[in-house]
Amino acid sequence: MSQKTSIPKGTRDFLPDDVKKRQFIFDTIKDTYRLHGYLPIETPSFELTSTLLGKYGEEGDRLIFKILNSGEKVKKADIDALANDNLAKFSNSISEKALRYDLTVPFARFVVQHQNEITFPFKRYQIQPVWRADRPQHGRYQEFFQCDGDVVGSDSLWHEVDLIQIIDEVLFKLKFPGYTIKLNNRKILEGIAEICGQKDRIIDITVALDKLDKIGDDGVLKELEDKGFDSKTRGLIHPLFQMSGNWNERFSFMQSFLLNSEIGTKGMIELGFIHDCLSLNPMLRGAIEFDVTLARGLNYYTGTIIEVKADDVQMGSICGGGRYDDLTGLFGLKGVSGVGISFGADRIYDCMESLKLFPSNITDSLDVLFLNFGKEEIKVCHKLSMEIRNKGLISEIYPTDTKLQKQMKYANDRGAKTVVLLGEKEIANHTVVLKNMESGVQEEVNMKDFLNYF
Amino acid sequence: MSQKTSIPKGTRDFLPDDVKKRQFIFDTIKDTYRLHGYLPIETPSFELTSTLLGKYGEEGDRLIFKILNSGEKVKKADIDALANDNLAKFSNSISEKALRYDLTVPFARFVVQHQNEITFPFKRYQIQPVWRADRPQHGRYQEFFQCDGDVVGSDSLWHEVDLIQIIDEVLFKLKFPGYTIKLNNRKILEGIAEICGQKDRIIDITVALDKLDKIGDDGVLKELEDKGFDSKTRGLIHPLFQMSGNWNERFSFMQSFLLNSEIGTKGMIELGFIHDCLSLNPMLRGAIEFDVTLARGLNYYTGTIIEVKADDVQMGSICGGGRYDDLTGLFGLKGVSGVGISFGADRIYDCMESLKLFPSNITDSLDVLFLNFGKEEIKVCHKLSMEIRNKGLISEIYPTDTKLQKQMKYANDRGAKTVVLLGEKEIANHTVVLKNMESGVQEEVNMKDFLNYF
Repeated sequence: MSQKTSIPKGTRDFLPDDVKKRQFIFDTIKDTYRLHGYLPIETPSFELTSTLLGKYGEEGDRLIFKILNSGEKVKKADIDALANDNLAKFSNSISEKALRYDLTVPFARFVVQHQNEITFPFKRYQIQPVWRADRPQHGRYQEFFQCDGDVVGSDSLWHEVDLIQIIDEVLFKLKFPGYTIKLNNRKILEGIAEICGQKDRIIDITVALDKLDKIGDDGVLKELEDKGFDSKTRGLIHPLFQMSGNWNERFSFMQSFLLNSEIGTKGMIELGFIHDCLSLNPMLRGAIEFDVTLARGLNYYTGTIIEVKADDVQMGSICGGGRYDDLTGLFGLKGVSGVGISFGADRIYDCMESLKLFPSNITDSLDVLFLNFGKEEIKVCHKLSMEIRNKGLISEIYPTDTKLQKQMKYANDRGAKTVVLLGEKEIANHTVVLKNMESGVQEEVNMKDFLNYF
Repeated sequence: MSQKTSIPKGTRDFLPDDVKKRQFIFDTIKDTYRLHGYLPIETPSFELTSTLLGKYGEEGDRLIFKILNSGEKVKKADIDALANDNLAKFSNSISEKALRYDLTVPFARFVVQHQNEITFPFKRYQIQPVWRADRPQHGRYQEFFQCDGDVVGSDSLWHEVDLIQIIDEVLFKLKFPGYTIKLNNRKILEGIAEICGQKDRIIDITVALDKLDKIGDDGVLKELEDKGFDSKTRGLIHPLFQMSGNWNERFSFMQSFLLNSEIGTKGMIELGFIHDCLSLNPMLRGAIEFDVTLARGLNYYTGTIIEVKADDVQMGSICGGGRYDDLTGLFGLKGVSGVGISFGADRIYDCMESLKLFPSNITDSLDVLFLNFGKEEIKVCHKLSMEIRNKGLISEIYPTDTKLQKQMKYANDRGAKTVVLLGEKEIANHTVVLKNMESGVQEEVNMKDFLNYF
């Protein structure tokens, strides 16, 4: 009885070429973190449900995959809760573990749990999958990798500078032709709200500002009006939409705008410091942009906010991050400031595919294939194949002495670069025939010169 | 309100040194598979429950982690099944997905699903975590990595030869001082049962034989008696226990023993071929042993059986594998023979720790640390640090100009190899002071010679 073969919606199989391309991205990110002194950690795929719940808001809680208790433990099912339509309570009665939803909360838990085993400031990177019960749709998956780098235990702005350099180096190594690293600061957004006399409505203001790209000037003004901001406030905010020019022009404009806000001015000083330090690097390739509408992660970011977009391709942000003041406080370790970034590997992959950035040889998987002419011939090939591998080349022998046509088809399908023909005649002559699969040229070389050929 | 920090029993956090050591093992395995022409694939962490259930026996089914349906879907809970103590039915009513239990069944599903996108014989490797709801105990985890290599679509015994070479190369590269690769063949075990006139009791016989190491001659004889084997049968089997000597002596003995069993003789021919081909390799480092008591995976292996043990350390097998005739048949693709191996990364790790095999520099994580003497000094360090990294060295700057004592403690804790001191005086003199942290020697070099120092 045979089964249909399929996988859950929102998950993916990765074929060899996919794996290699993804690995190329992961390795580039990993190596860059490593050179900057970041250390790798890994946490379990599932955490205690109590570690995760309540950290991602109501919507986040709903998207956490819960693991059903094993065996007898499901007997504790709270049927009353089910009957009363309290589904969360019912689910929690039969589940104690849940799949990782991101790498940030497990990292916070890790830092607190291992605080006596690590050195602060602790710079870590972590590249692992996370799972979300999101409705599957194009480009959104239930299982995907995050590539996070964070520093905890230091409020130095040099870490922001370092992380932005890491972003720049990664994207340069991946050969992105152009990209923009947008910066903002939570304190600047607070300052804007303060200047408008709407200190407690920072979220409403920034949510509206954040839509400028999509709905334009008039759209944002209308949204502000709908939310009950009076015309005086709208008039104060309006110039922010029209801010233009280079870094210095925007910076001066905002400095004046925020002159009477202490918190806003503090944000400007932080942003200015980061920009000045980045300017020391003549090799910085990305464009650095001050984007006052940038408002990602406003729930947790308390200082710098970072977002990166690739030029010449329609795609959301490929990397983002920011500073948070009290990540580990949730788990009882107070006063530990942190800052971090996260690369979106799937989006980077999609960008690289559409911009054709992957090295053309990345999917090469066979340097030398020995054709099989029979039992005795293949024993000689077996030894030569080992020697080829000792030179660092990928080599295999065709496993059976089937028709040459079939063997050559395999050579083509696998993209073998060189095919070795070694039959009775060649063994007698102490020679080997080599066929270059790209040029089609065949060449007979002496057996003892064989290894030098490569 | 702070939470206790802990992780589910049977799972692990990996600190930076652990991750690096584990990565060293994974990379070695990966690179060896790659050089032999194996291609990487990855499958989702969770599969449809129907893909996994019924593939691992009753005990296996119980150990599969099920994922609770999200949101409204738990309303389908079969409360009657719960009331009737049919826990499996209840669980299945609220779960459609389950975590991967091994890499073999997902691989079979993958091959069938993607049969038109891959080239046969298809040689793949896959290094991913698997999850089992085993009772946690020392050395047994609920989440652990498997490192599998398999070939499907060819019954050539050259694949067995190649896989054994891969095992040998991996353990050699990991610097295992000695190890034994034990071989047997399901057909030989069937032959033994046939010779004893107990063709249908192969499992009872081999289960008893398999215990020889633990319970000795008399123990096995007693077990056979308890299972109802008469004294004639026991007399026939007894000589197998006492088999000794080198490969050739054992091989001759078994050839005679199985002379009148067609299937047994076939097994001997297969085993002999593999041994002969392996003998062509003068570089083979492991001891190859014919172990007629080896009976792992008898549920699915149909030919060669492989098991590897490390010398000089108390540890179960660190690698195992074998040939199976019909893996993909379950999913509707018949007649596809396969053979594969699986490295136990956790056991290999434990062996390497107790034999002290990890390279001593594997945990190095900081080549150059720039101390922080203040705002202006550190800007110069920032540039030098970038240049150091361009040479492939790990470099960072201390983020704040705190007390030198604290900065030096960090340098020590992080195992920095060189510390750079660059204060006001050095900047004025265009010099840099380098401190070698191992020797303690300090040296002042000219700024322009700085990079050449490394």
